[in-house]
Amino acid sequence: MPADSNIIVAVEEKKEDGLFQSLTERSKHEDFIRRAVDLLVERVVFGRASRTSKVVEWSAPEDIKQAIDLKVRDGPASHEELLAFMADVARYSVNTAHPYFVNQLFSSVDPYGLIGQWLTDALNPSVYTFEVAPVFTLMEEEVLREMRSIVGWADGEGDGIFCPGGSIANGYAISCARSYFYPEIKNKGVYAVPKLVIFTSELAHYSTKKMAVFMGIGSDNCILVKADENGRMDVNDFERKINEAIEAGATPFLVTSTSGTTVYGAFDPIVPISNICKKYNLWLHVDAAWGGGALMSRKHRNLLNGIEADSVTWNPHKLLAAPQQCSTFLLKHKNVLKEAHSSNAQYLFQKDKFYDTSYDTGDKHIQCGRRADVLKFWFMWKAKGSEGFEKHVEKLFDNANYFLEHIRQREGFRLVIPKPECTNIMFWYIPKCLRSCENEPNYYERLHKVAPKIKERMIKEGSMMVTYQPQGNLVNFFRIVFQNSALDHKDMIYFANEFERLGSDIVV
Amino acid sequence: MPADSNIIVAVEEKKEDGLFQSLTERSKHEDFIRRAVDLLVERVVFGRASRTSKVVEWSAPEDIKQAIDLKVRDGPASHEELLAFMADVARYSVNTAHPYFVNQLFSSVDPYGLIGQWLTDALNPSVYTFEVAPVFTLMEEEVLREMRSIVGWADGEGDGIFCPGGSIANGYAISCARSYFYPEIKNKGVYAVPKLVIFTSELAHYSTKKMAVFMGIGSDNCILVKADENGRMDVNDFERKINEAIEAGATPFLVTSTSGTTVYGAFDPIVPISNICKKYNLWLHVDAAWGGGALMSRKHRNLLNGIEADSVTWNPHKLLAAPQQCSTFLLKHKNVLKEAHSSNAQYLFQKDKFYDTSYDTGDKHIQCGRRADVLKFWFMWKAKGSEGFEKHVEKLFDNANYFLEHIRQREGFRLVIPKPECTNIMFWYIPKCLRSCENEPNYYERLHKVAPKIKERMIKEGSMMVTYQPQGNLVNFFRIVFQNSALDHKDMIYFANEFERLGSDIVV
Repeated sequence: MPADSNIIVAVEEKKEDGLFQSLTERSKHEDFIRRAVDLLVERVVFGRASRTSKVVEWSAPEDIKQAIDLKVRDGPASHEELLAFMADVARYSVNTAHPYFVNQLFSSVDPYGLIGQWLTDALNPSVYTFEVAPVFTLMEEEVLREMRSIVGWADGEGDGIFCPGGSIANGYAISCARSYFYPEIKNKGVYAVPKLVIFTSELAHYSTKKMAVFMGIGSDNCILVKADENGRMDVNDFERKINEAIEAGATPFLVTSTSGTTVYGAFDPIVPISNICKKYNLWLHVDAAWGGGALMSRKHRNLLNGIEADSVTWNPHKLLAAPQQCSTFLLKHKNVLKEAHSSNAQYLFQKDKFYDTSYDTGDKHIQCGRRADVLKFWFMWKAKGSEGFEKHVEKLFDNANYFLEHIRQREGFRLVIPKPECTNIMFWYIPKCLRSCENEPNYYERLHKVAPKIKERMIKEGSMMVTYQPQGNLVNFFRIVFQNSALDHKDMIYFANEFERLGSDIVV
Repeated sequence: MPADSNIIVAVEEKKEDGLFQSLTERSKHEDFIRRAVDLLVERVVFGRASRTSKVVEWSAPEDIKQAIDLKVRDGPASHEELLAFMADVARYSVNTAHPYFVNQLFSSVDPYGLIGQWLTDALNPSVYTFEVAPVFTLMEEEVLREMRSIVGWADGEGDGIFCPGGSIANGYAISCARSYFYPEIKNKGVYAVPKLVIFTSELAHYSTKKMAVFMGIGSDNCILVKADENGRMDVNDFERKINEAIEAGATPFLVTSTSGTTVYGAFDPIVPISNICKKYNLWLHVDAAWGGGALMSRKHRNLLNGIEADSVTWNPHKLLAAPQQCSTFLLKHKNVLKEAHSSNAQYLFQKDKFYDTSYDTGDKHIQCGRRADVLKFWFMWKAKGSEGFEKHVEKLFDNANYFLEHIRQREGFRLVIPKPECTNIMFWYIPKCLRSCENEPNYYERLHKVAPKIKERMIKEGSMMVTYQPQGNLVNFFRIVFQNSALDHKDMIYFANEFERLGSDIVV
């Protein structure tokens, strides 16, 4: 049966006057939607989150192009063909819901988060005015205030927004700090202000530098501060670099400190950094995109002591396992977002509306149309309660610690950092051929080749997904990331066993 | 029954060795998901797209806070409570799927788009590397190439990305143009280059100015060109303003021309603008976020003659009715996106992977983690075919023209622009009390108050949603926007009748 979708037809009911007889269309669409939803629930949601399924059905680009007819056509596909496309797209996609997908700083599909997301899609909102998105507007206000309260600003005062990812949230920090110190930049641009420089750790996420480029500051003016052996910002080097910049004629105005670095999971020491910021009058932004979730745990939130800085990036889609994408930018200053970004477009932010237009919050954003990323997180929070998030976070840390202690004692594993702070654990797996070769001249050169080979094997088998990378002078090592609290200690043993199975006989 | 969600539990099957006995959890989650999906399909998707339902159940902020317990709690909610929350969130949300939601440049819920979105959510991807998002990566490549081909670049050559909205897409244009002319800006920032200015029409979307502020250029250096009486950029004024800027010591480098302005739906004359760009060596960006969909119609694509410029913003979530959010930035230059934005983060874009890493396209973006906005659009395209989109677009233009001609002749309606070019129609509704008062001194002052009053009535009744705004010297007028092709001529009469019913007796 052809899809009968030559035009988009709203699903609708028959009216008594017979004007809008779309019942046939409705039943066709309804039949398709019900079959599609069955496929989604059974084969995608439940079929893929099981340990007995594969994490990935590896295929090379050319093979996927052969398997799925990706080309768009002049004419329509049938409903049967569309259902087959759905199954194929799922089959060849990486199974990020799988317990053994521990490759990135996100994973798992939370059932409540998913339903919240599906409801959002069905409502198809764009959040800029109360008029068009009343519930989402109030929900954002509530969730952002609660998050600010957890960060530690008194009574949750301040401001905040949902952003399309942590990178852009870190860009907002630059924009807000610039506007806070130099409001004239809004009209005059950087031409009217001193040459500005920003600071972040050499181990910080690349987004601060990338946003500095995008925002006209330039990567040379994003000054990288040394990290210590645990991956935390070296506070002495920070102060030294500030002074060097001042001597070179530049004006420091912002530091982005990190709570949970991307590779090592390190937490920069916020309190001493904050003291230096006060001394030199710098805006302190804390990028807690990854580690922010630890704030939900009374046991672990001390990792972020001092986080009640000028602004914070916190992505619930990371440690708290909300669906992609759920990123927030929070700040203690009430009006800076609006002062920095508002443009008062008359077609959208009319002041003569019949309701309180202070609820039309869109002008604080650089986006105009904007997805509602709040509902899925709010819905998870309702379903679990703050206590549920706390238990979730504590389970993650417990698993990470168990894995750490297990591989610390196990032959073939060597830790990169003796005592990681977050739930990412970094290690080299040493195949048999390299054990007790550490003093040979090409040892590290050979070790560098191990991770890509193990990665290729694990992906082709689909038994797990763990990422690797080099870092500074260190050759390729693995970083395993835990943010799925359905895992337990037995899974930790599974991962270690898998590395041994896949890697012990590798010859480099 | 409590939600039993104190921790997030992956839904999974029992393994033979009995290690992972989560069947009880699965059945609890499965029961909830099935009930939630029933509610979604029946009450949200099908229950709201009918003409017999209300467009909005208006409630003031305080009333919504009373009706829905928005506060998050320490403990979990039960499944019953969660289902009730879903129903309430839907009830108090604006029904953007409703045929009579004609308030913004987006509307309707397309059944195929929705299923594509739901599948995306269930797969929960982030698109940066082929390794993690193989199908989405190839799908983006295919769809973006096809869109470039439709724009008119030979063989679909060039580059492109999906963006979180048209505003950020317009920011990418600034960034790419800056990097193209001044590659040194990446490292050195704006400090190393001349004082740059950009141009756009006074009727262009506010995002170009807003992004200029965000990117350090400043709103004063975003020079607004006059529009003619039809809302199209005045090409003579454009050239004049270029020369004035040069004389003032600034360096013009970019113009953002608009195909389908936000309020009037006007199409700037691209060909003469392009000639001026060649003369002065400017990057020509076309913001076709709204009007780009007309490219799918052989009958209407001449509105965008000359669009094969340096770069284009095109949002399929607008005229083509894809779900929120689906925005693209397309350009004819192959390497500019990468040169402008890449940072080569080693932890993500490792070069020693076992596959062709040219498929790891994430480094072109300023985002790191990124939602997959391609699948829903690809799925719609498969379901309808290009022919389906063409029929859709032609129906919209036909409806808009029918509405235009109807109100042109109808008492009480007065057109703002005699011959609008796109599917937004702008008009004043003149209540009886103002008819034949046009020569009275306070006529426009009184007319200005009409639209807010009618808007309040229509929202409180929920019978339709149409936006209004002032523009320049013009007092408040309505803008009705058609992008739901399930509407027909009878609906056009309905809208006109509703204005009469709600507005004719208004006293101002």
